[in-house]
Amino acid sequence: MSTTTQRPVTSIDDAGDPRLDADVAVDVGHLGEVLLGHYPELRLAARKLMADERFHRIEGQSVPEHRERVLGQLRLLAVEGDVHRSFPSRFGGFDDHGGFLARFEELTHADPSLQIKSGVQWGLFASAIYHLGTERNHDEFLADALSIKVPGAFAMTETGHGSDVAAIGTTATYDVATQEFVIHTPFRAAWKDYLGNAGQHGTAAVVFARLVTQGVDHGVHAIYVPIRDEATMEFLPGVGGEDDGLKGGLNGIDNGRLWFDHVRVPRTNLLNRYGDVTPEGVYESPIDSPGRRFFTMLGTLVQGRVSLDGAAVVASRLGLTIAVTYGNQRRQFASSSPTEEVVLLDYAEHQRRLLPLLAETYAAGFAHEDLLAAFDDVFSGRNDTPETREDLETLAAALKPTSTWHALNTLQVSREACGGAGFLAENRITGLRADLDVYATFEGDNTVLLQLVGKRLLADYSKTFKHLDAVKVARLVAERAADAARYRTPLRRATQTIADVGDPRRSAGQLRETTTQRELLVDRVETMVAEIAQALRPAQKASPQEAAALFNAHQHELVEAAKAHAELVQWESFTAALERVTDPSTRQILTWVRDLFGLSLIERHLTWYLLNGRLSAGRARTVTSYIDRLLTRLRPHAQSLVDAFGYEQVHLRAPIASGAEAGRQDEARAYYKAQRASGDAPVPEKHHR
Amino acid sequence: MSTTTQRPVTSIDDAGDPRLDADVAVDVGHLGEVLLGHYPELRLAARKLMADERFHRIEGQSVPEHRERVLGQLRLLAVEGDVHRSFPSRFGGFDDHGGFLARFEELTHADPSLQIKSGVQWGLFASAIYHLGTERNHDEFLADALSIKVPGAFAMTETGHGSDVAAIGTTATYDVATQEFVIHTPFRAAWKDYLGNAGQHGTAAVVFARLVTQGVDHGVHAIYVPIRDEATMEFLPGVGGEDDGLKGGLNGIDNGRLWFDHVRVPRTNLLNRYGDVTPEGVYESPIDSPGRRFFTMLGTLVQGRVSLDGAAVVASRLGLTIAVTYGNQRRQFASSSPTEEVVLLDYAEHQRRLLPLLAETYAAGFAHEDLLAAFDDVFSGRNDTPETREDLETLAAALKPTSTWHALNTLQVSREACGGAGFLAENRITGLRADLDVYATFEGDNTVLLQLVGKRLLADYSKTFKHLDAVKVARLVAERAADAARYRTPLRRATQTIADVGDPRRSAGQLRETTTQRELLVDRVETMVAEIAQALRPAQKASPQEAAALFNAHQHELVEAAKAHAELVQWESFTAALERVTDPSTRQILTWVRDLFGLSLIERHLTWYLLNGRLSAGRARTVTSYIDRLLTRLRPHAQSLVDAFGYEQVHLRAPIASGAEAGRQDEARAYYKAQRASGDAPVPEKHHR
Repeated sequence: MSTTTQRPVTSIDDAGDPRLDADVAVDVGHLGEVLLGHYPELRLAARKLMADERFHRIEGQSVPEHRERVLGQLRLLAVEGDVHRSFPSRFGGFDDHGGFLARFEELTHADPSLQIKSGVQWGLFASAIYHLGTERNHDEFLADALSIKVPGAFAMTETGHGSDVAAIGTTATYDVATQEFVIHTPFRAAWKDYLGNAGQHGTAAVVFARLVTQGVDHGVHAIYVPIRDEATMEFLPGVGGEDDGLKGGLNGIDNGRLWFDHVRVPRTNLLNRYGDVTPEGVYESPIDSPGRRFFTMLGTLVQGRVSLDGAAVVASRLGLTIAVTYGNQRRQFASSSPTEEVVLLDYAEHQRRLLPLLAETYAAGFAHEDLLAAFDDVFSGRNDTPETREDLETLAAALKPTSTWHALNTLQVSREACGGAGFLAENRITGLRADLDVYATFEGDNTVLLQLVGKRLLADYSKTFKHLDAVKVARLVAERAADAARYRTPLRRATQTIADVGDPRRSAGQLRETTTQRELLVDRVETMVAEIAQALRPAQKASPQEAAALFNAHQHELVEAAKAHAELVQWESFTAALERVTDPSTRQILTWVRDLFGLSLIERHLTWYLLNGRLSAGRARTVTSYIDRLLTRLRPHAQSLVDAFGYEQVHLRAPIASGAEAGRQDEARAYYKAQRASGDAPVPEKHHR
Repeated sequence: MSTTTQRPVTSIDDAGDPRLDADVAVDVGHLGEVLLGHYPELRLAARKLMADERFHRIEGQSVPEHRERVLGQLRLLAVEGDVHRSFPSRFGGFDDHGGFLARFEELTHADPSLQIKSGVQWGLFASAIYHLGTERNHDEFLADALSIKVPGAFAMTETGHGSDVAAIGTTATYDVATQEFVIHTPFRAAWKDYLGNAGQHGTAAVVFARLVTQGVDHGVHAIYVPIRDEATMEFLPGVGGEDDGLKGGLNGIDNGRLWFDHVRVPRTNLLNRYGDVTPEGVYESPIDSPGRRFFTMLGTLVQGRVSLDGAAVVASRLGLTIAVTYGNQRRQFASSSPTEEVVLLDYAEHQRRLLPLLAETYAAGFAHEDLLAAFDDVFSGRNDTPETREDLETLAAALKPTSTWHALNTLQVSREACGGAGFLAENRITGLRADLDVYATFEGDNTVLLQLVGKRLLADYSKTFKHLDAVKVARLVAERAADAARYRTPLRRATQTIADVGDPRRSAGQLRETTTQRELLVDRVETMVAEIAQALRPAQKASPQEAAALFNAHQHELVEAAKAHAELVQWESFTAALERVTDPSTRQILTWVRDLFGLSLIERHLTWYLLNGRLSAGRARTVTSYIDRLLTRLRPHAQSLVDAFGYEQVHLRAPIASGAEAGRQDEARAYYKAQRASGDAPVPEKHHR
């Protein structure tokens, strides 16, 4: 190890000589600690709890069995699981918001249904009471929600409106005569839908409805509404609904629909932190603007998105650990040796399929830890301002789509990398993929979230111009124009191309520099946003129809810009995390992983870099060849890199990742070896002739 | 319509004016006929049969219930389903191989488990008896296989060897004393695995084993082996196995494992068309080369891959029909109008996600019909030569990976496009996706198949050189070098860039030309293959280890070249199909769909075109903008384009594609309209102040 520590990290690439790589190795324990992030003890405690087989999913259970099992697991968690952690001390908690989510994310190992049903009960139902309510509501409802005496639904989405919450149809009309709210579903599209706990187990719901008093519609508010008789589990009078039935996954959760026919609840059931109605029917709110009030209320629910980001990382890690472990044991096709078949992971295409996903999973994990820290900063009150809240919401809206889509892709490629064995439920990948599927659209549809991120990027862009006077703006525009000309002038490109041709290795060397990767990634986001802003400028003077049409014409680019932003965030988190790796050898390897992630992003968007003159054709060509070199470099460390995720067999629970495959092969080889030794082996026909 | 018919098809693009598009419309009936391909009557008859609810999948059935249901469906098919169609007339068939597959593909509408279990019984088990056996075997085994009196397994894959069939471990050793074959599983890795009908229902199996006689191993042969007692359904003596249990999908099929402990079967159970053993133990074969014999035997099984290609097209069509229909009804978010929300498919990003997949589904469908025709030409004997067989196998190996991956992607995007509703099992997309998952790795792992295609492309490339003398080769090489120089010279690129800048519309105009698209697609395949061939040249003089390493270093490029070839094949099939559309208006729209497919391919690989100097940056930029224009053009026809797939509600069976969503919205709008008219509507807070 001593030679390694003496070589500076940045000099890895002047060595074309793979022998120099031989003395680096991952310190799996150390890297594992880095990966545990901000809440190592809580995560390890949660994993220990999840090692208890009472929490494990039993593949192939019927829907009713699975639902009962998960409900029972929630009851266990309510006793043993530290589920009050984010709540105030008078409810047994520690006001520890980040730690609360870290623990919940780890439930994914046991069963994503357990994670999501827990999310419904504590992360949505109880958290809505806590964050949207005041002490009055806390005293009345919170203890029973936390103890799961009252399993509750979070009744926001309607059949007719999901992403567009502001347009829901359910009403809560204040009746001054009885001091009650009348909850009503005016038409079928306003049925609440897809709600966990609504199908079967829930006895109450936090219902989102348009609050109407004195003839004025004050927009969406949340109200606590009992829905089922706790003794008979029958719907209460005026409440109805139906089960959503079988789903593509997450069948441990009883999603369902609810409707209300003039159901009356006391005035005080309104969760009244951001809006209240006096007994006389006068509406009051600490936030004047109805729009800002609405977004403030919804903003308290960001933790759902944060936890989905974390769960997506867990699922990707599980899938890759299974696929890489199997790929390191499974052999198929003889290569140059007649008696020895090739290990799958030695195939270049197998590396190409799995290792960039592994690099991206590392990036997503580090980015998630940063998101969790930002979340905790805001929710702990340590750094809670309108700006930090908005930043947090933007970050969550950027990372959740990126990591959930990544998880689906990773699980699918992992499944295919395990062939038919990957398709067996016992090896878990198909089940995880089925469960994770809906993560791409719930708690904010991924595309809708990315559009929000894009709009925020546009707003930030226009803000940088807002504080400049006209002369400075003109100068900036001129500079940009000059930039564009420089990038687009063939002559300059030609010069650059010729310069590059001289030494391809130096080109690759540049691309592995942290600063070069950052420049390329930042430049792309900034340029994309600037170009969209430029293209949308006429909208300011256009009719609403024309403005909408213009925006729509650039929607795809806006979503792409948001994706680019999210990728940059992941890359920055990964780069920052390298500093936390103290073992030089491990840091060396992890830097290659970061380079693989950065270069894979640049390769994915190479067309953009070429079209915008940011990379010459010559340098662009080195991107792919450098990725190939990184794959070769990382291949020997692939197992260590998944081992560092820290999963034991009790978490993986996949027979193909248990060593069984290697055992079967050893047996087969021993058989053939003995047969050859005995002289009894049949002669192959082609040798016989 | 008259103005349309007078405008020539190729002039679509000089009209920037969308009003000109208003008078084109898809003749859904006519396009539907074109899509029905070579076997319209058989496909329609199969769809009619599949409208019978006895064949429909019941979502949420337990595994045992689902298996029994599918077995029962097979028994119905054996009576009503024309399952003998590909077999000789003395077994009730018509020697109609293409029609046989066309019918089977249509079973996918009812339940992919039904398609695959039918495929196991008739396409693999019975077909192996037919194609690998002689009249002796047909007389003895075929009638019971066809009538499903004997449900049978196709026992080729082993736990230890899937794609590499040549390396299986099971042996069939001839015992001259008793004139029997002794079937034996020497170790755990040689257990037969993942076999449909092996888990529960099968009473016999066609077992692939290394045939050993007189001390010589003659390689893999197929032998008919009874496995279960038909009365008790217990394993016969010496036979064992286990159920593969729950899978990620296709749970209507009882996949399982089998092992054999010195199980004896009569000599005549050998399916002896390509290899036989005399009573005295002498091995005989009409094919001398063991390698060619092996590939000839496996080649008879190409129909499995052909039918998976067809099933993938069916599943993609189903998913898109559901998603496009829903996207044409579902509204979300108000745009410029306060009372009218935007239809999902009017969002540019929604179009960007769904319509290129629709174009690719059209391409895959047309390519499949060409594959089916090639298959029928060979198997009918009309055009059965070693060359046409090899071409057929290459074509199937190219298209099956392309269409099955496309189906998985399409179903996932379709699911997400339907949001939470898409995740409900009742809307079918998640179930189809789960079932189709394994299509990517069974009947030949997609990556392995693409590598075979790549090797064939390399072989063809070297053949073109074989017949040239040294001078001609030198000239060709020189020309290629000149080409490369021309493409790579910045000066020429600069000139081209400047020329392009002049008229972007003319650039786009060029890209929509059939000849330009073809040139770009062909050029890419040819250049990629040539470059790989060049890179692999040193392998001829290298050691086996070095040659293997060199090949491995280019494996990824080879797979990419094979994908490019498959895409070109699809594009050519689509282009040829345009000629079969006689209605000018329909042909116009379908030409746009073809252009969308072609341009999407070019956009996907734009980096390559830029790096290799085939497109200037200026022209490359027009690719994306032309795609945007095509999306706008095609959007009004999206519904017609999925309606032309010809599915009725009885085939779709997805409530969200039934019009229910539009009905709910009409009800909601009527409610709000009446409320506004009554003057009772609450005033929005922001208007109230």
